[in-house]
Amino acid sequence: MKFIENGTVTSPKGFKAAGVIGGIKPSNTTKRDIMMIASDTPCTTAAVFTKNLVKSSAILVTQKNIENGKAQAVIANSGNANTCNADGIEKAERMCALAAESLGIDKSDVIVASTGVIGQVLPIEPFERAVPEIARLMSENGGSDAAEAIMTTDTVKKEAAVEVELSGKKVTIGVIAKGSGMIHINMGTMLSFVTTDAAVSSEMLQAALSEAVEVSYNMVSVDGDTSTNDTLAILANGMAGNEEITTRSADFMAFTAALTELCKKMAKKLAGDGEGATKLIVCTVDGAKTVTDAKGAAKAVVSSSLVKAAMFGSDANCGRVLCAIGYSGCDIDVSKVDVSLVSKAGEIEVCKDGIGLAFSEELAKKILLENEITIKVSLNDGEGSAEAYGCDLTYDYVKINGDYRT
Amino acid sequence: MKFIENGTVTSPKGFKAAGVIGGIKPSNTTKRDIMMIASDTPCTTAAVFTKNLVKSSAILVTQKNIENGKAQAVIANSGNANTCNADGIEKAERMCALAAESLGIDKSDVIVASTGVIGQVLPIEPFERAVPEIARLMSENGGSDAAEAIMTTDTVKKEAAVEVELSGKKVTIGVIAKGSGMIHINMGTMLSFVTTDAAVSSEMLQAALSEAVEVSYNMVSVDGDTSTNDTLAILANGMAGNEEITTRSADFMAFTAALTELCKKMAKKLAGDGEGATKLIVCTVDGAKTVTDAKGAAKAVVSSSLVKAAMFGSDANCGRVLCAIGYSGCDIDVSKVDVSLVSKAGEIEVCKDGIGLAFSEELAKKILLENEITIKVSLNDGEGSAEAYGCDLTYDYVKINGDYRT
Repeated sequence: MKFIENGTVTSPKGFKAAGVIGGIKPSNTTKRDIMMIASDTPCTTAAVFTKNLVKSSAILVTQKNIENGKAQAVIANSGNANTCNADGIEKAERMCALAAESLGIDKSDVIVASTGVIGQVLPIEPFERAVPEIARLMSENGGSDAAEAIMTTDTVKKEAAVEVELSGKKVTIGVIAKGSGMIHINMGTMLSFVTTDAAVSSEMLQAALSEAVEVSYNMVSVDGDTSTNDTLAILANGMAGNEEITTRSADFMAFTAALTELCKKMAKKLAGDGEGATKLIVCTVDGAKTVTDAKGAAKAVVSSSLVKAAMFGSDANCGRVLCAIGYSGCDIDVSKVDVSLVSKAGEIEVCKDGIGLAFSEELAKKILLENEITIKVSLNDGEGSAEAYGCDLTYDYVKINGDYRT
Repeated sequence: MKFIENGTVTSPKGFKAAGVIGGIKPSNTTKRDIMMIASDTPCTTAAVFTKNLVKSSAILVTQKNIENGKAQAVIANSGNANTCNADGIEKAERMCALAAESLGIDKSDVIVASTGVIGQVLPIEPFERAVPEIARLMSENGGSDAAEAIMTTDTVKKEAAVEVELSGKKVTIGVIAKGSGMIHINMGTMLSFVTTDAAVSSEMLQAALSEAVEVSYNMVSVDGDTSTNDTLAILANGMAGNEEITTRSADFMAFTAALTELCKKMAKKLAGDGEGATKLIVCTVDGAKTVTDAKGAAKAVVSSSLVKAAMFGSDANCGRVLCAIGYSGCDIDVSKVDVSLVSKAGEIEVCKDGIGLAFSEELAKKILLENEITIKVSLNDGEGSAEAYGCDLTYDYVKINGDYRT
């Protein structure tokens, strides 16, 4: 398995994409905001959605469209979430119909997604104008434009691709995502689309996606809020020519491992580009009684506002890490907990056996001034381990969210 | 039942208190940081502590001391949490011994509490110097100095008292508290001490306290972090001369109602003075299937970083309120949810039947510029109601917590 340079959602065979300035984002019309991805041939599909009871109309329509495990295209927009709107379903269906018409496919083979402000009516005119243009622009180099078109407060495009060999055939998996705010454990993203030229049955595609998401997107927290629009969907067109994966075979394992690495890479990108973030915070936990305990402790640490603020200030406040582990609800023995802070500037132990250590504030500061910090927690009480991804809490997070709508 | 003007923990008969500058807070020695409260006579006692597995040594010592339901004094400090220290128990016991010696009582009748930085060794010398002085200063006017001595990042002293008649006898209940940061649902405070001259058995005192805390301190969130030091303790010396409350009598109900109002008043003070806060945010929920659902929804709204940031920016982003209700885990019917924003500047409906409404941004802004905002949620699906208390998320929260230790 290896990552492809400049990989994106159009890296796998037979996928095209494009993104344009459709005019949904009112305050900034120089940003792309509508995109489509399509496969040359029909695909199997699988998806994971937000657990929020309040769901975007786009999700309700997508769930219906992919019930049969098949899809061929994605249409998505930023600037408006199409959530809590009286005519939301109608608008989401219209988006699918426009995409299908322009691509010459069935409208029930379209995945639709929206991201942006909740509770404002989605204008359909921008789609009517833009979709035919997008269809004309669709190309094998269009993945990046599609990635850009789903950005909201994201500061960087998020895309990647990996290659993996399945029984001698080279298979490619590509991904784009947008994140930034309203991001918490259990689908810690807002939108992510994965494409692959592997042949995988929709059942096994769902199994692979569910496994991959569990240790990647589901371990990201930016602000503790779970979005109403979270959608992670995968399309597999089989053009790589591998024998279709229909069971938990060795190929399935290899495919799932590659998909997992790809999603983990994106999870880190999402966390590091959380709203206002200046730093990626990774919390690794080992020695937990169970994996569930390890996950719970790791999530609590990256979700803690106080840990996040301390990381912003490069303050080695280990008490807050212990505090978060203590209220995580996990079964731990406080008197066995060790904590270290690690970055490329070095490593320093700040807590041993649940007791705060005296440490060099100078070295700690140097470590925490880096833009990727690992908080290493050893519970010394079992074999369970996990990793969670977050970011620091900054003035800019408050600024961005103090007046998001205008 | 009525609130007493300038009421505090020394308002009930037979209680004295004092607070001094002991020198525990290194960077600012002009702030009081050690205090004692004592009753002239032995008291029944009850307490509620943090649910965090990581607990201050002060809590462990207090739990042992009040096992018999009796206590007579409190010693507390700010500036150091005495948590995650190798010699924490020893230091907490020494604090009790010093207090007991100076007051001429048994050291097992002392409640001890600390608040401040976690994981730094608590110096005992400041107590050795200060405690005899505090004992000399103890007076019936000392409640406010005691309230000041437990402040950390609090910007205002928190104290109050109520009078209530129990079978013809006037009884007084007084309280002081400190809050500010590391505050979340389930003991949303760090330290609070209640005194009363009512005669109440320790069992009924615990019952009254547990009922009162459930709808007051347990409904406060500042930042989602549950402190390691949360302690709410009550001392009852019986000097009001009422017949001792030993059952769930009418007197018990009246006493509990008064205690509840007192704790609710403090809960609002804690929320409104949350770290960096400029506004108190109250979320009222009615029409829930159950009280548990109402509580869950109300807590989710006041705990949401995105709602809190929007309130700071006076942005009527009702989508974030719906989003928080949606992920709260409560059993709700999204299509029945109404949301209004209320302050003394007016009231505006922003969501009806789960659909965002068009509303006057001008009026909404005017309402949200006030320093006490109510987010009124009607679930229209039952009889359960609840109220939760929070604050806005501001630049200052990040600033305060970016470098708390120095």
